[in-house]
Amino acid sequence: MREARTLSGFRDILPDNASVKESMLNSIKEVFKTFGFVPIETPHLEYAEVLIGKGSEEIQKELYKFRDHGGRDVALRFDQTVPLARFVVQHKHMLSSPFKRYAIGNVFRGERAQAGRYREFTQCDFDFIGTTSILSDMEIIQVINNSLISLGIENFTIKINNRKILNGLAKYFKVEDKIEDILRIVDKIDKIGEDKVKEELSESANLANDSIEEIIKFISIKQEDDNFFETVSDYKNYNELMKEGIEELEAIFEILATLDIKKENYKIDFSIARGLAYYTGTVYETVLDDLPSMGSVCSGGRYDNLTKSFSEDDNMSGVGASIGIDRLMAALEKLELIKGKNTTADVLILNIDERYLSNIHKTGEDLRKKGIKVEVYPDTMKFKKQMKYANNKGHEFVIILGEDEINNGTMTLKNMLNGEQTTIKNIDEAVKIISN
Amino acid sequence: MREARTLSGFRDILPDNASVKESMLNSIKEVFKTFGFVPIETPHLEYAEVLIGKGSEEIQKELYKFRDHGGRDVALRFDQTVPLARFVVQHKHMLSSPFKRYAIGNVFRGERAQAGRYREFTQCDFDFIGTTSILSDMEIIQVINNSLISLGIENFTIKINNRKILNGLAKYFKVEDKIEDILRIVDKIDKIGEDKVKEELSESANLANDSIEEIIKFISIKQEDDNFFETVSDYKNYNELMKEGIEELEAIFEILATLDIKKENYKIDFSIARGLAYYTGTVYETVLDDLPSMGSVCSGGRYDNLTKSFSEDDNMSGVGASIGIDRLMAALEKLELIKGKNTTADVLILNIDERYLSNIHKTGEDLRKKGIKVEVYPDTMKFKKQMKYANNKGHEFVIILGEDEINNGTMTLKNMLNGEQTTIKNIDEAVKIISN
Repeated sequence: MREARTLSGFRDILPDNASVKESMLNSIKEVFKTFGFVPIETPHLEYAEVLIGKGSEEIQKELYKFRDHGGRDVALRFDQTVPLARFVVQHKHMLSSPFKRYAIGNVFRGERAQAGRYREFTQCDFDFIGTTSILSDMEIIQVINNSLISLGIENFTIKINNRKILNGLAKYFKVEDKIEDILRIVDKIDKIGEDKVKEELSESANLANDSIEEIIKFISIKQEDDNFFETVSDYKNYNELMKEGIEELEAIFEILATLDIKKENYKIDFSIARGLAYYTGTVYETVLDDLPSMGSVCSGGRYDNLTKSFSEDDNMSGVGASIGIDRLMAALEKLELIKGKNTTADVLILNIDERYLSNIHKTGEDLRKKGIKVEVYPDTMKFKKQMKYANNKGHEFVIILGEDEINNGTMTLKNMLNGEQTTIKNIDEAVKIISN
Repeated sequence: MREARTLSGFRDILPDNASVKESMLNSIKEVFKTFGFVPIETPHLEYAEVLIGKGSEEIQKELYKFRDHGGRDVALRFDQTVPLARFVVQHKHMLSSPFKRYAIGNVFRGERAQAGRYREFTQCDFDFIGTTSILSDMEIIQVINNSLISLGIENFTIKINNRKILNGLAKYFKVEDKIEDILRIVDKIDKIGEDKVKEELSESANLANDSIEEIIKFISIKQEDDNFFETVSDYKNYNELMKEGIEELEAIFEILATLDIKKENYKIDFSIARGLAYYTGTVYETVLDDLPSMGSVCSGGRYDNLTKSFSEDDNMSGVGASIGIDRLMAALEKLELIKGKNTTADVLILNIDERYLSNIHKTGEDLRKKGIKVEVYPDTMKFKKQMKYANNKGHEFVIILGEDEINNGTMTLKNMLNGEQTTIKNIDEAVKIISN
């Protein structure tokens, strides 16, 4: 006897959640399409050499790699960005530039098992490839905004920064090789307090006290009003990198301000860096205001060297983000913005008399033609058992076709929510009640 | 430098095909839902012991299996039916019975590389679990029928048989252990001729000549008219198995005849067996009448011992089928029933003057609010280059906002198919033309 179990860190998705996920993905894809992003698919399995050495050190340790039947070293993809880089180089003659693609698929990371983290999870990526226009950076914000709104979420903040600003800061204080550490330490300020942060900064970055003060002050800058760019304009004098970074944000905000996006939904935050080493310009993180502890539900940024390791000629630049659908589902459930259902059908037709098998299936067919989703109970069984099934699955309506109904040319429609029972004379009447 | 390549037998799906696939899957899912099937997801990776020993010998040889970081023997799923068996046993207390699920996902088989065969491909499965009602077998035919029609296909034949009939035949002629061989040999009749088939049958099955004649005659039976069940009724006397098999088909056809499914679209064919060892009742194969060489685009059947290897208590029966979406896509392309597009957007707004960046993005936003899918060209570039991009991607419309248009408060809308250019005064006018 085999044990019926999933691997540690892997999971099945049951109908209630799978239905919700499917309808969320449909909404998101619809938004991607309204901006002209096109879908692509890449394989789950790649030559190991395509993936090795990419992402963080941690991701590399977590890579699922093995040798296949043909003696090839292969690996399961850990994200969809590295395969995208391979894709655009491999098919460059087939693609128009700029290339705007979305990809929804599963990725694999053999992380240490922990609550809420899975070794296989779904990413929804959308990216511009082959343009350095800051307007594409701007459009990514529009897409994040519209995607969340399409899911019924209103209270969220897209936090925006630019890696050039952080690199400019590091250069100014001559801590180029320590900027990631510094950001990590400053990030703990709420948890461990300012004194402890200063202590750690002085130890690990070997910085003078007044530099530490200035760095903490800078990293803590968050946009609060429309005068933001005036407030920070002096920093442009630090160096060219800093100036470029701030001016790129200004260009993005200039256009955004003319569009119909709520100002509460996007804000500059100089502490946002994104872990991945490859971001070089704009970076994004998105938090749900009602559930900030959940972390970012949509992150990304601009990367200037996407295709460098595959091609010497074309160094294509890209900008994009990834919606964490699993995390978003968990959040929406907590916020009670979604409720999964165990049925996709509007109505269950009971099967209580063998003589009327063809009547119930014909009724099912007629309702389907009118756009109603119908399940017909397959076995002729006791009324009670079928009603229990309808209750468990959450059907809103049940149709009964027994001897009386057949003789009178009617059917009985029962509303499972309020228990109301109606005698119906024809299909159209049933359609009217069910679709109300 | 890494080489940008996919593994042999694996492939990327480019935007034109990926768009078609996505819209086909949406149609099919919509049909599944009209019958009350619910979605589930299972992981791509399973404990190897869940998958080992399942499917054919060939499938076992092709299994992608390896040892993971934790020293577990794991394998990539080769179908979605074995994981379904694991799923229903593992979650049985959470599921209502009968359980109707669909699952759309990729499976992996390390087959010898050959044209049109891939090592990773997509399956669209839909199954009833936990009912032996013949009406569920009937409903599978309805779902196949409606799925193909939803894709714009009208000329197809769902070939139906019952394994009990073939097993009854084998029992009658005392060739129980050779029935698969016999079917395989008879299947070659069009290719190698009747004489050669008889020769092979006599060699491999050691059968008398008159038995061979009878077997060939039987296996060649295909339904031709409404008198079919009369024609074959004598065979019921062969044995109980044969009787059961024929009567199950009769029960299915009795209901189907009262429904609105064209008789040309489903037919009994006694040669249909399906290779997989686990089918025990009804079996299905579906061919496109205009492209029979493509083979079956939707196959399946009833299996009585789905969960046997995971659980001693419950031996759940199931019936279902799987739509081969990749094969179907290839067929529809050949039949010119589909044409992929490289853009999802209805219109491209050109970006020809830096002064009007906010105007073009505002226009894009306004059109999107009216349901139009809009791409805004990200870089301010020469008119010609952007027109070439619109042509390559297949945009139907282009909007131009230059100095004249801005000064006059208009925009220019160009129909890319007929070259017609219209001066438009407001968004609604544009929406009207674009959505026509």
